[in-house]
Amino acid sequence: MIRLRRTPERIRVPLGFSFSALAAGLKASGRPDLALAEASSGAAAAALFTRNRVVAAPLEVGRASLVATGGRVCAIVVNSGNANCATGAGGRRACEHICKEAGRLLGANAAEVFPSSTGIIGVPLSADKIIRELPKLIAARRPSQRDVLAFAQAIMTTDTRPKIASARFDAGSKRVTLLGIAKGSGMIHPQLATMLVYLFTDVAASPRELQHVLRDACDQSLNCMSVDGDTSTNDTVLLLASGQSRASVRDVRVRTKFGDALLAVCQSLAEQIVSDGEGVEHVIRLFVEQARSRDEALQVARAIAHSALVKTAWAGADPNWGRILAAVGASGIPVDPGRIKIFIGNQMVCSKGAACPFDSGRAHRALAKPVCDVRVQLGRGANAVRFLTTDLTAEYIRINADYST
Amino acid sequence: MIRLRRTPERIRVPLGFSFSALAAGLKASGRPDLALAEASSGAAAAALFTRNRVVAAPLEVGRASLVATGGRVCAIVVNSGNANCATGAGGRRACEHICKEAGRLLGANAAEVFPSSTGIIGVPLSADKIIRELPKLIAARRPSQRDVLAFAQAIMTTDTRPKIASARFDAGSKRVTLLGIAKGSGMIHPQLATMLVYLFTDVAASPRELQHVLRDACDQSLNCMSVDGDTSTNDTVLLLASGQSRASVRDVRVRTKFGDALLAVCQSLAEQIVSDGEGVEHVIRLFVEQARSRDEALQVARAIAHSALVKTAWAGADPNWGRILAAVGASGIPVDPGRIKIFIGNQMVCSKGAACPFDSGRAHRALAKPVCDVRVQLGRGANAVRFLTTDLTAEYIRINADYST
Repeated sequence: MIRLRRTPERIRVPLGFSFSALAAGLKASGRPDLALAEASSGAAAAALFTRNRVVAAPLEVGRASLVATGGRVCAIVVNSGNANCATGAGGRRACEHICKEAGRLLGANAAEVFPSSTGIIGVPLSADKIIRELPKLIAARRPSQRDVLAFAQAIMTTDTRPKIASARFDAGSKRVTLLGIAKGSGMIHPQLATMLVYLFTDVAASPRELQHVLRDACDQSLNCMSVDGDTSTNDTVLLLASGQSRASVRDVRVRTKFGDALLAVCQSLAEQIVSDGEGVEHVIRLFVEQARSRDEALQVARAIAHSALVKTAWAGADPNWGRILAAVGASGIPVDPGRIKIFIGNQMVCSKGAACPFDSGRAHRALAKPVCDVRVQLGRGANAVRFLTTDLTAEYIRINADYST
Repeated sequence: MIRLRRTPERIRVPLGFSFSALAAGLKASGRPDLALAEASSGAAAAALFTRNRVVAAPLEVGRASLVATGGRVCAIVVNSGNANCATGAGGRRACEHICKEAGRLLGANAAEVFPSSTGIIGVPLSADKIIRELPKLIAARRPSQRDVLAFAQAIMTTDTRPKIASARFDAGSKRVTLLGIAKGSGMIHPQLATMLVYLFTDVAASPRELQHVLRDACDQSLNCMSVDGDTSTNDTVLLLASGQSRASVRDVRVRTKFGDALLAVCQSLAEQIVSDGEGVEHVIRLFVEQARSRDEALQVARAIAHSALVKTAWAGADPNWGRILAAVGASGIPVDPGRIKIFIGNQMVCSKGAACPFDSGRAHRALAKPVCDVRVQLGRGANAVRFLTTDLTAEYIRINADYST
């Protein structure tokens, strides 16, 4: 049995990891903006990065470091308030400088320090502001729930709440713990990964074993969501395994349970990200079914999830299924409209591509809830996808249209 | 010389066409919602339709009629207030019934009456409401500016103003006139065509000759714009040529001038549609340059024009070029960020994919104007596209989130 927890006071911290956070002055608000996670004896690592062709400096540095170390990480240093993206050679030097100093203070190689940044694009990152706080940051690290929460808060940008989930399962006499921490609210349409997600576990596994299970879990969770259809330049998912539980994924029962636990944690984080999306009032669990392939289902789901007209109808809890049908028709998949069915909540609202009798008041009430299921059946095959998305509200515009951002 | 006009009182009406409009009770507001354009001696016709797989009944009927007549149209009957889309076999019968009755009253074949509808999707269209007004509509037709304006107003939905442009040129002793009428404000991301555009001319040309020149003009105008990235189920562009000017496109000078005039009229209509886009405060003339092909430039332009984060930055007149760069990186084109330049107004704001010094107050003021140029140079080749797009404002959300729409 896997026990999933997402209340900060009830989460579990895997063996072998410590956390800390502080305010280094990168955020104009003065809020915490620098966070550390340390693996005391090092950890095996697997990572996924954005597919955006414009890639931030820390992703370039982190990717090269994982290659250089063969997938070994001893610490993560994350700053918010500045994405260190589109900052040229200077941005890369700043990032390398931070890793080198953190490594020196921790007695590790610079390449064993994994860097992340999130915030505004195109503004030079001050390495000095971060480096001068590193001794204090490192001294403060603890393996406690409170410090995990501090880490989760320090990596937030437009997020209104921290995003944390943990899972635990028993493997014989051993106990494996998995902890996930994420941030993300806008620019959420991950292609392989989402904004910043850190996963920590004490399972024993090689980097290659971790990579395989991480890809599987992300494909069904963090890669199936969209707030605004914008793919970030800084998307990163990092999974670290300390091995200190002494349970190994080479045991097939551990591997299966670990895969399930990782998927549960990633799905919880995806739900937390989408429900805290910028200006979001309604989360839509979109099921696209009866597709010829999973990719086809995903393409239709994205067409619906990226339609401004569909998303604004959802903002008004308007069961305007015609807009959903039009988005399916424009998806690029050669659908036959005469075979399409659409459901809102548990009611069919469109059959054979045309109106069918339904209770529009009930459909409106279903959409007015914080979470509503919308189901689209294509009548083309047997493949399906579950996709998390959101409405598009005036509050999203307010958050993103300010001249000062 | 081509003389383009867009003020309703100054437009020119080509020989051979009459117009009328009235209120048939399809719009809840009681505003005019039924329009007629008649070609007294018939006209050669060419048309482009949406690429959406979900296609409204009048498009199916109109497309079949053009095939049956070999491209001959004697009248257009357009209703607003109902798109007659996703209305099943009943919707198609209603449309055919309207064409048959209009043909009977005009002494023409049903297939020579071209039908159009625009408005809500998925609600049955009442043919009776339209048919009972046809005698009055037909009796009222006139070849005047005032009736052209009435036609343009009756086909509006969320449009706040009618969209009309005319052009005239001399060909020897002959004079050719071209008139364009359009509607469109939301669901604007045409794929081959836009919402509803009617083009009337007295040039002499065969349907095949018209089709060729229409495709060329639309590719550079109506196909290069986006308000919200949603492709309509009812997009139609129809070009009718009465031949009554006696100037023929078989004369190469007439053909060249006619192509130029058609492009000028289509570009003017595209600008009118985009500047009247739902909630639009700022129109962006987006130039994507130095692409390997025109299709590549178009793909990048669409990625920028469909980014919610870029569009909300424009709403705030925020020169946040990092969001533009991120959208280019996510476009699917394998760009090298280190070669990208971005200009806002006449200032370079990003060079080699990174910040360059610029006057942000001046960039803000440029974006705050009703129309602003944004230029993206990819450094990959010699192809370019000019794309019209808009900001995304809270007013767009208000217009589209109402439960009652």
